[in-house]
Amino acid sequence: ALPSRVTISIQLTPLRPARFPSIERDPVFSRENQYFQSQNERYEAAVRKAVHLQKKMHEMGWTESGPEFKYIYRAVSGDIAFLLHRIFIRSISVLGSDKQIAKWIPLATQHKLIGSYAQTELGHGTYLQGLETTAVFDITTQEFILNTPKVSAMKWWPGDMGRSATHTVVFAQLYINGKCYGVHPFIVQIRSLRDHSLCPGITAGDIGPKMNFENVDNGYLMLQNVRVPRENMLNKFCEVQPDGTYVRQGSQKINYFTMTTVRISLISDEVIIPLMKACTIAIRYSVVRRQSKLKPGKQEAKILDYQTQQEKLLPQLATAYAFHFINDYLQELFNRVYREIRKKNFNTLPELHAFSSGFKAMVTQYSTSAVQICLQACGGHGYSSLSGLPSLYTRIIASCIYEGENTILLLQTARFLIKCSRAASAGQPVPPSVTYLAAVKPGKCPAKNKLEFLSPDIYTEAYQHMAARSVQRMGNGDLIQSGVKKHDAWNQCTVQLAQAAKAHCHYITVKNFAETVEKLKTEAGIQKIMKHLCDLFALHGIFSNAGVFLHDGYVSGAQMDMITASYLDLLAVIRKDAVPLVDAFDFTDKSLNSALGSYDGQVYQRLYEWAQKSPTNKQVRMLDYIRATLCISQSTRCLLFF
Amino acid sequence: ALPSRVTISIQLTPLRPARFPSIERDPVFSRENQYFQSQNERYEAAVRKAVHLQKKMHEMGWTESGPEFKYIYRAVSGDIAFLLHRIFIRSISVLGSDKQIAKWIPLATQHKLIGSYAQTELGHGTYLQGLETTAVFDITTQEFILNTPKVSAMKWWPGDMGRSATHTVVFAQLYINGKCYGVHPFIVQIRSLRDHSLCPGITAGDIGPKMNFENVDNGYLMLQNVRVPRENMLNKFCEVQPDGTYVRQGSQKINYFTMTTVRISLISDEVIIPLMKACTIAIRYSVVRRQSKLKPGKQEAKILDYQTQQEKLLPQLATAYAFHFINDYLQELFNRVYREIRKKNFNTLPELHAFSSGFKAMVTQYSTSAVQICLQACGGHGYSSLSGLPSLYTRIIASCIYEGENTILLLQTARFLIKCSRAASAGQPVPPSVTYLAAVKPGKCPAKNKLEFLSPDIYTEAYQHMAARSVQRMGNGDLIQSGVKKHDAWNQCTVQLAQAAKAHCHYITVKNFAETVEKLKTEAGIQKIMKHLCDLFALHGIFSNAGVFLHDGYVSGAQMDMITASYLDLLAVIRKDAVPLVDAFDFTDKSLNSALGSYDGQVYQRLYEWAQKSPTNKQVRMLDYIRATLCISQSTRCLLFF
Repeated sequence: ALPSRVTISIQLTPLRPARFPSIERDPVFSRENQYFQSQNERYEAAVRKAVHLQKKMHEMGWTESGPEFKYIYRAVSGDIAFLLHRIFIRSISVLGSDKQIAKWIPLATQHKLIGSYAQTELGHGTYLQGLETTAVFDITTQEFILNTPKVSAMKWWPGDMGRSATHTVVFAQLYINGKCYGVHPFIVQIRSLRDHSLCPGITAGDIGPKMNFENVDNGYLMLQNVRVPRENMLNKFCEVQPDGTYVRQGSQKINYFTMTTVRISLISDEVIIPLMKACTIAIRYSVVRRQSKLKPGKQEAKILDYQTQQEKLLPQLATAYAFHFINDYLQELFNRVYREIRKKNFNTLPELHAFSSGFKAMVTQYSTSAVQICLQACGGHGYSSLSGLPSLYTRIIASCIYEGENTILLLQTARFLIKCSRAASAGQPVPPSVTYLAAVKPGKCPAKNKLEFLSPDIYTEAYQHMAARSVQRMGNGDLIQSGVKKHDAWNQCTVQLAQAAKAHCHYITVKNFAETVEKLKTEAGIQKIMKHLCDLFALHGIFSNAGVFLHDGYVSGAQMDMITASYLDLLAVIRKDAVPLVDAFDFTDKSLNSALGSYDGQVYQRLYEWAQKSPTNKQVRMLDYIRATLCISQSTRCLLFF
Repeated sequence: ALPSRVTISIQLTPLRPARFPSIERDPVFSRENQYFQSQNERYEAAVRKAVHLQKKMHEMGWTESGPEFKYIYRAVSGDIAFLLHRIFIRSISVLGSDKQIAKWIPLATQHKLIGSYAQTELGHGTYLQGLETTAVFDITTQEFILNTPKVSAMKWWPGDMGRSATHTVVFAQLYINGKCYGVHPFIVQIRSLRDHSLCPGITAGDIGPKMNFENVDNGYLMLQNVRVPRENMLNKFCEVQPDGTYVRQGSQKINYFTMTTVRISLISDEVIIPLMKACTIAIRYSVVRRQSKLKPGKQEAKILDYQTQQEKLLPQLATAYAFHFINDYLQELFNRVYREIRKKNFNTLPELHAFSSGFKAMVTQYSTSAVQICLQACGGHGYSSLSGLPSLYTRIIASCIYEGENTILLLQTARFLIKCSRAASAGQPVPPSVTYLAAVKPGKCPAKNKLEFLSPDIYTEAYQHMAARSVQRMGNGDLIQSGVKKHDAWNQCTVQLAQAAKAHCHYITVKNFAETVEKLKTEAGIQKIMKHLCDLFALHGIFSNAGVFLHDGYVSGAQMDMITASYLDLLAVIRKDAVPLVDAFDFTDKSLNSALGSYDGQVYQRLYEWAQKSPTNKQVRMLDYIRATLCISQSTRCLLFF
């Protein structure tokens, strides 16, 4: 068992709202049997939970947009149905006119319909302009006629669509008098409110098993001459008038704003929290599990006392903290931009778009790899579903794909950085976060021994140099061409452009971590521990990407040895606080749902008890079959084989 | 659809034995519904397949050890039961006396019993000396009494043990007159041959769901005063005589030889074949999928025409070929050592052990990461189980853990390399594969332009320099200490020691690939293509591990730019042959079992058709529940909420 232990009191999680009943103790929300359920059972449980939650929220007077929802989502670990209903509401709120909002939002919030969001198609994902669903305006009936012209145009993947939704927002190419006006959103009813049967012209169903998300009925949707009234096109920014005149108001980019907000909001719930859970499970297990001996004649050592295990897990712990703080940074950026947008100022939208893209890509990719490391670091038991790690992993890996494929997002960030780099070099104004791009000078890292590499100034400067150089050399290179060659040149630089975007995000993350530690209003002891984590995050990044720091001689081989030494020294230092540092994430046992990660450390007993609940231990009919294959009784003739 | 295409005729797969009936077309072996089945259904199907296969083998006169089994295993993709039965047979063949072999092998090969192999415990995996199960010799009855003294001593994970096996080889600490003689193997019956019920003193069951291997009943086993006769200890190398005298013959290391043989045999079936499958699926999909435009006004481009997609997939393709060839190298090493062992010469065993460990670690780790890249490179559709990629991934990741945890294996390789490095420096004889360790000299890579980096001599030399330096600096460092400090020093070097071991294996893989291409007896055109792949594998490795090549200045920053340029150029060259290069792996559509990877490229139609078969599309009872949550009929009162 784990010893009684010190607590690190740093507030990382939202405070549970006052007089908030326990969601976790409610049997309807139990995740106890989750690992044993089929896709269908998971879906049914998720629907039950969603309905139960709505009842509770109604009783308590909570709203979908209130502060409680974040806490609830954490408590149920996202394992409820109708989450796309929230995206349905959000897209109408952002893209709908006041009249549309007045009509649809009350229906949705009172659950008189179940909404979904139908954007992705079988043949098109991130490249929205390529969507093939059509919406043709019929002036005679004042309706849009929606169609799925071919198989690849079928909507595919939308959550809550396979079995639940009654309505959805369909993104389709708008045609008026044979002319295409690009992709627009339309509210379409797909199932009857009377008997939930599919509406005329609608084909829909479930897309089948996925790597995770068994609780969600990701669906497909085909439309055959489905007519919706003219009023069903969301028309806050674009409108088709009765005579077929197309009117646009404001920036078309605002159509993608729903995606930007989703992209930012998923980072905390779908990425950082799972990463923190994985760290908690793996680190707690690593102080219970013993293997082999560090010294002859001694007891077997806890595996977290091995340098190799520390080097696997502790950088992931530091990453979890780094990403927690960069998420705050992104939220602030978002709030600032959103205030401007509400004042009809769209100037800061490109910066928000570029950075939310790049950070989404970096955070999801590093966190996915971190959870994989945590899983593998727990050996065979990590591979058991009962550890909780396989489900965390198979879920977080999806975050690299959904809401924008990571490589494409990084290239969007890179395009923005190149533009800023050129502007900055030309003395034009650029956002404060990228002014550093103008200031790269050749030079050498001034640190003279391994201790100096524990100075945030030294390593932040190294990251800045590396990021600026990565961006600048791309901006100076082949990209400055014109005509068709320009596109070939861009394609031939994309591997390095994506690296440059990642370098920028990594730099900002290190810088933000260092600044956050500096400002920490907490006990000196906590600040010191946070400083260690910040150092570890920074030096691990240099150690793991040594090439880019060594490339132009900014860091020398001898300095890289000092960095390595400091980095490895830090592992042993942070090892001492590793358990309190994961305790500080404040997950309950129920929320972790892991036989390896519970607070009390009763790993083996719990694995054994949980395994008893597996349905495979309640199946007997196969035994007859096996029996028949063996030579039963004293006979020497095996029934089947001989 | 894919165009008709050229064929690359390189023989990579075992030729189908003459007059061999199609395993794949046999309905019992169908994997068509695999993605929709529960753990229990998968297990039952696997048992049915195993029994059906035995019948077929009996009819055809094939044996377990015959050449056909490799082909069969590939055809059924490992999705059959009773595979541990083969390990049971192998361990008795290797560790049993002639008398034991004469008694047990016929029973096993005639399937009069179902065997398993019970080594791993809840509390101990790779560190075998720590196993806690006990076997106490009772001189009065001439029996061993086996016990599971505590929860952590329970056998946990053995395949075929949860529900199927009747017998198993239990590894336990042998005690005679209170003295412990270490871990030894004992044959123990666990289930009745009459009615398959558990034998007295046996508790056993299924350990529940895992990330994959639903077809296998990995199990647990507790022993309570289970008695087996003295003859049941496998005693080719160690024996307990009737009077309790313990006699050892030969090396104790031979006890681990079963593991070494398993480790080598899994590389091809469980790692390289799945990697080749993942490459086939992802590359075929990437020439069907189109996204965005490379040039304005043109058709959307195939995603494999984007440099970033090439950079994801083509290095994995090169890796699949590199590992195919290194597997041949390992097989040869194994055959050479095995010939010696049969002549009672154990001298080459350490080399085999060290290299099988290191290559197992490198091949499984790189292949796991490669399959993950293939999955993510297919975007959302790669995440669908129907792509086949999730099951390939969740299965291959286990190979990093089973048969020896990778980090521990790398450290065993490192220990051997350090020893050899010191011996070589002292002028003592070392195996030919490591003589290069004596010959590190400071120096610089002589290549002057990017084309020179396409010379195998240049890059092989660079890898050799890097590997030798990585090993040597560890050998020269803190490790030369004595007493307790020696163990601390070792622990503090393990991160870098593991890197050194990987560097050695990477070097040998590059060298072996280059030599194989050189010797290829095939058309010149094929040799040229293989040379491109070899170049790509080598330069990708330098590009991705730039730090170690730059560190001591062997490669300069300017040279690294040349390497990067050559590497990126190669992507566009190999792109042209990418489809034929995966066709050459020669997988049938049934064997790939992927909606994305079929030969005809009908991706979208197949995804749609396969989704129809999902049980989630046949469930209706939840609809009533959803209906009740909505405002049905014209009433304005929602039944549940308001």
